[in-house]
Amino acid sequence: MSNARKNAASSAIRTIDVIRRKRDGQEMSPAELTHLVDGYTRGEIPDYQVSAWLMAALIRGLTRAETAALTDAMLRSSEVLDLSPYAGAKVGKHSTGGVGDKTSLIVAPVAAAGGLVVPMISGRGLGHTGGTLDKLESIRGLRVDLSLVHFCEVLGACGCSMIGQTVEFAPADRKFYSLRDATGTVESPYLICASIMSKKLAEGLDALVLDVKTGSGAFMKTEKDAIFLAELMVEAGQRVGRRTVALITDMDQPLGLKIGNALEVEECLDVLHGGGPADLRELCLELAAWMFYLGGRARTIPEGKELADRMLRSGLALEKFRQMVELQGGDPAAIDNHAGLPQATATLDVPSPTSGYVSAIQCENLGTASAILGGGREKKEDSIDPAVGISLHKKLGDRVAAGETLCTLHYNSETRAARARELVESSYQFAPTPPSLPPLVHGVIGSPRR
Amino acid sequence: MSNARKNAASSAIRTIDVIRRKRDGQEMSPAELTHLVDGYTRGEIPDYQVSAWLMAALIRGLTRAETAALTDAMLRSSEVLDLSPYAGAKVGKHSTGGVGDKTSLIVAPVAAAGGLVVPMISGRGLGHTGGTLDKLESIRGLRVDLSLVHFCEVLGACGCSMIGQTVEFAPADRKFYSLRDATGTVESPYLICASIMSKKLAEGLDALVLDVKTGSGAFMKTEKDAIFLAELMVEAGQRVGRRTVALITDMDQPLGLKIGNALEVEECLDVLHGGGPADLRELCLELAAWMFYLGGRARTIPEGKELADRMLRSGLALEKFRQMVELQGGDPAAIDNHAGLPQATATLDVPSPTSGYVSAIQCENLGTASAILGGGREKKEDSIDPAVGISLHKKLGDRVAAGETLCTLHYNSETRAARARELVESSYQFAPTPPSLPPLVHGVIGSPRR
Repeated sequence: MSNARKNAASSAIRTIDVIRRKRDGQEMSPAELTHLVDGYTRGEIPDYQVSAWLMAALIRGLTRAETAALTDAMLRSSEVLDLSPYAGAKVGKHSTGGVGDKTSLIVAPVAAAGGLVVPMISGRGLGHTGGTLDKLESIRGLRVDLSLVHFCEVLGACGCSMIGQTVEFAPADRKFYSLRDATGTVESPYLICASIMSKKLAEGLDALVLDVKTGSGAFMKTEKDAIFLAELMVEAGQRVGRRTVALITDMDQPLGLKIGNALEVEECLDVLHGGGPADLRELCLELAAWMFYLGGRARTIPEGKELADRMLRSGLALEKFRQMVELQGGDPAAIDNHAGLPQATATLDVPSPTSGYVSAIQCENLGTASAILGGGREKKEDSIDPAVGISLHKKLGDRVAAGETLCTLHYNSETRAARARELVESSYQFAPTPPSLPPLVHGVIGSPRR
Repeated sequence: MSNARKNAASSAIRTIDVIRRKRDGQEMSPAELTHLVDGYTRGEIPDYQVSAWLMAALIRGLTRAETAALTDAMLRSSEVLDLSPYAGAKVGKHSTGGVGDKTSLIVAPVAAAGGLVVPMISGRGLGHTGGTLDKLESIRGLRVDLSLVHFCEVLGACGCSMIGQTVEFAPADRKFYSLRDATGTVESPYLICASIMSKKLAEGLDALVLDVKTGSGAFMKTEKDAIFLAELMVEAGQRVGRRTVALITDMDQPLGLKIGNALEVEECLDVLHGGGPADLRELCLELAAWMFYLGGRARTIPEGKELADRMLRSGLALEKFRQMVELQGGDPAAIDNHAGLPQATATLDVPSPTSGYVSAIQCENLGTASAILGGGREKKEDSIDPAVGISLHKKLGDRVAAGETLCTLHYNSETRAARARELVESSYQFAPTPPSLPPLVHGVIGSPRR
C-alpha cells in the first residue's frame, strides 16, 4: 500500500470563493476541488460550507472535467492499494445495485480462475437493494472485516477477495457520503460518480467493468439517467488511465429467481456448479467477458465469454470461490450442500389472482418486501436475517394460471410475512397476451471496440 | 415587550424533506419554513442542513408567499417591541446602505419632532458602506448599547432612539446571517428581504419607509435589482398589515459632500441647523414626508414635505436630536460646534488631472477609500477611526479645471492616505460636455396613492 495523499494545493484558495463560484455556475479548477476535498477530509473546512457547495454542485451540475478532478481529489485522499506484486491484470467490477443482483459472487471467481486479480471492497445492502457483504456473511464463519494487508494476502493466494471498507480506505468519501445523506445531495450523478469511482480506483485497478442498472428495481429508473451516469463514470476512469466500460443492464425485474442473502448465495452456487437461471448466468458471462477483454485475457468479447463459460463448466471458478471462502475463515460445508446455509423456518406461496402473462413487476417493491421479511435494512444500524427472502416462480413474459404460485416467501416472522405478502401481491401486473421483454444488456458505454 | 414566539408547528415535518423540496424547486409551506427557522434558532437543526437549504433557496429562489412566510417565521423568533404605551404612530425607516448615506440622523429627529415615534435598531458599517451606530459614536459619551427597556424609555421621552441589536432581538436573523456570510448565500434578494423585514417589523412599527439604493455605491448596482428587492420587501411588510413603501434612490455618487463618521455627523448637524447640501436635505424631506404620510400626519406627500421642512427650519428637529443625544449619554457640546467632534490630524487635497465636467464617480471606491483611511471595517472585528474620511468639492456634472481640488482626504496615517489617494484618483471620470444627471429619487414602490 502507498499513501497517495499529496500536500494541499495553493493555500491562497478561499473556501467562500469556491462556494460562490459553483453557486454562480462557474467551472472549478482541479486545485479548487483539491482544496475542498483535502480541507474537508482534514477537518479544516466545516460541514456547513461543504454542504452549501454540495447543494450548488447538485443544482448547477459539474462539467466532465470537474467530475474527473473531484474523483481524482477524493482518490488521492485515500490509501491506494498497490497490487503490483501479484501477477495478472487487476480488473474490478462494480454494480450500481439492484434486486437479486448477485453477480459479484460468480464473476469474481470466474475472472480469478481465468487469470485476473479481482479486488472487491464492497458495501452492505440499504433500502431495497442487497449488498455483497451481507450475502457472503450467510456462510458460517466467513469474515469480511479483514485488514487491507490480509485482503492483499487473500488476493495473492487465490486472485479474488471481498471485504468491507476499512478506516484508512476512502476517508473523504465516507465523510462526504454521510454529509450528502443528511443534506439532500445524494442524488447528483456527478457526486455519485466521484464517490463510486474514487473508491474503485483506490483498489489499484488496471481496468474496471461497471454494471449500471436501469429500471423499476434500480436507482436510475430511466435508461437516459443510467446512460448519463455510465458516461460520467467511464470518462472519469478513462481520464486517469484506467480501461473502463459500463454495461447498461436491465433491472425491470429481479436478476435470477432468488432474493435474500442465503437464497442468493444458493443461486450463485447453482451457477458455479454449472446450472442456475439463464439470465443470471448470461449476465455473469457478459461481465466476465468484458473483464477478460479489458484485462488482456481475450481478444474479443465472444472469446472472453467462451473463456468465462469454460471456467464455469470446468469447476475452476467454483474452486476459486471455495478457496476464497476458506481463506476468509468461512465454512466450506455450504458450498456443496444448500443445507449448510441458514434456512427460514416457514414458507408461504403467493398465488396469482388471475390467468394470463406476467406483464410488469414492480421490482423495487420485491426488494423492499425481502427487506421487510428481515433480509435488508431500513437504517444503517439495523441487523439482518440471512435466511429470509423470496424465491420467484414466474418472471416477465411467463404464462400463469389463476391460483398458480407466483413466488414463495421464506420467513421467520408471521407479522413480517403478512406485510411482505401485501406488498408482493401489489407488485405484479398481468396481460392477456405476452408482453415484449426488455433486453438483459441495454448497451455498452466506453467500449474501445467490440 | 412581548415574546411572540409560538410553539413549533407539526413535528412531523422532516428537515431532509424540506431541503429536498427546495432543491427540486418546489414551494415551501409556512409550516415548513417555521420548522426550519425555529429548529435552527433553538439549535435542533444543524448548520450543515440549513446551509444546504440556503444554497437551494438562493439558486431556486423563493415565491412571494415563501418570502413573506420566511419573514414572518423569523419575526416570530424574536422579541417584538410593544410601543403601544407611547402616543403617536410608530413609523420606521431603513436604508439598504450606501456611501455618505446619513439620512437616519436627520430624518428620525424630523419625524419625531412632527409627532411620530421612530424606533431605530441599526447596524454598523461593513465594507464600503457606513453604519448609523458608528457615526453616532463620534459624539463623545453617546451609548448605542442600551437595553430594550432603556431604548423604550428614550423613545417615550423624545420620540426617537437609535441602538444596536441586543441578544433577545432577532436571534434567528443573527444565526442565519452569520451562516449566510460563511456559505456564499448573502446575495439572495429573498433572504435579504426576510432578514431586513423581520428585524424592522420586530421594532413594533405601524408603517415603514424603505430607502433602497441603486447605483455604483449600492449593493444593488442596477435599478432592476433594486426594484425587485423593493417589491419583495414592500409585499412582505404589507402582507403582515404594515403600511410599507420603498423609495428607489440614487447611489451613483455619494449622498451629500462628506464621507466618514464624524464628518457625516457634521453634515447632518448642518442640515439640522437649516443648511447643508441640497441633495441630502431634499432626500431627508422626501423620506420624512412619506413617514408623515404613512403615519397619518400628512394627507399628501407635499404636505408631508412641508411639515418636514418646518421641523428643520424651526429648529425643532435639532432640539429632538439634542434631546436624544443627551438621553443616550452623549456630550451635546458637539451639536453647536464642529470642534466638539473628533478631527483628523492632517488633510490632503486631491486635484483634478484634467479640465471638463465630472461625468462619473465610482462611488463604491470612495466608500472603500474612506474605509482604508480607517473610517470603515474590512472584518466585523476591526475598530474604526471616527475622525477620518473624505470631503467632496465636486460632484456629478460639476465643471472642474485641471489642478482644481476634487476632494480632500482627512487622515491620521500617511500610509493609509497614500493607498486611499490612489483609489480616489481612479474613481473620477471627466467629459468635455455636461453629463445627464440621475434623479435623486428613481421611483416609489408600494405607494397607496400619491
